[in-house]
Amino acid sequence: MNLKDYIARIDNYPTEGIVFRDITPLMANGEAYRAATKEIVDYAEGLNIDMVVGPEARGFIVGCPVAFEMGVGFAPVRKPGKLPREVVSAEYEKEYGTDTLTMHADAIKKGDRVLIVDDLLATGGTVQATIEMIEKLGGIVVGCAFLIELDDLNGREKLEGYDVKVLMHF
Amino acid sequence: MNLKDYIARIDNYPTEGIVFRDITPLMANGEAYRAATKEIVDYAEGLNIDMVVGPEARGFIVGCPVAFEMGVGFAPVRKPGKLPREVVSAEYEKEYGTDTLTMHADAIKKGDRVLIVDDLLATGGTVQATIEMIEKLGGIVVGCAFLIELDDLNGREKLEGYDVKVLMHF
Repeated sequence: MNLKDYIARIDNYPTEGIVFRDITPLMANGEAYRAATKEIVDYAEGLNIDMVVGPEARGFIVGCPVAFEMGVGFAPVRKPGKLPREVVSAEYEKEYGTDTLTMHADAIKKGDRVLIVDDLLATGGTVQATIEMIEKLGGIVVGCAFLIELDDLNGREKLEGYDVKVLMHF
Repeated sequence: MNLKDYIARIDNYPTEGIVFRDITPLMANGEAYRAATKEIVDYAEGLNIDMVVGPEARGFIVGCPVAFEMGVGFAPVRKPGKLPREVVSAEYEKEYGTDTLTMHADAIKKGDRVLIVDDLLATGGTVQATIEMIEKLGGIVVGCAFLIELDDLNGREKLEGYDVKVLMHF
């Protein structure tokens, strides 16, 4: 099975000149969704993880079945105002200005071995902010798994020193 | 295992007088997350489903592991502007004004047997709009599963004629 067959290419979305990679056809196909999840689980089996962390909202689609299959918990990374209890936060740079992400302050316990899962590694801002929050809480980021890496955007540079698994390169 | 032990009660959130039920402690506990997912899977085993549909973002956390475990696809329900291809949409009433939800027009095929999964059945507006879109696309809603039902809000009335599974009542 070639997972790339299940990624739709959308030109000029969300803005002119951008090529968007749409993962919804992969998720819509039970076999492809299972295969992609299993590939991340296989990667993470040796990492002895305690928690999966994923950014909203596509990180939930990719990360939650991984947590379920491995029998560990899942902690969501969300935009400000979406989590009801005490949070930690981190900023990251976007094309214009900055954005903020949050996690519950008790989402990660000191020493937890954490796998970050998201659909896309692009410029790496989201994952960098996520790592910052996990480490602020005393967690150890033992791996980062992405369905897709957009190689031209050099997000990988922000992950130096971290273990990274990517299923598809564009 | 009593799943209610893993639901946090937050008074006056998001606004004064509202009691918010926070599912993140349940998701953070691998055993509780697995037990809740399995209970929905057990319910759905007999329904012969083709697809799981869940509204963003907590519906992804609850629904995606169910789709994975059953080996079927997952289709997201999202707010307008979040899906890159042709969509169908439905409106629902909120306390003040209306809100719109969307699904990809090819997310459901005619005759697909669909399980809707979400974290919460409150007033029922989200699930009603979701049913409307699925049926517009020719799908058959064979079941609706929720982690939590807030009994006082009477969302159940909007689901007359549909099969409903709820794991916890508050």
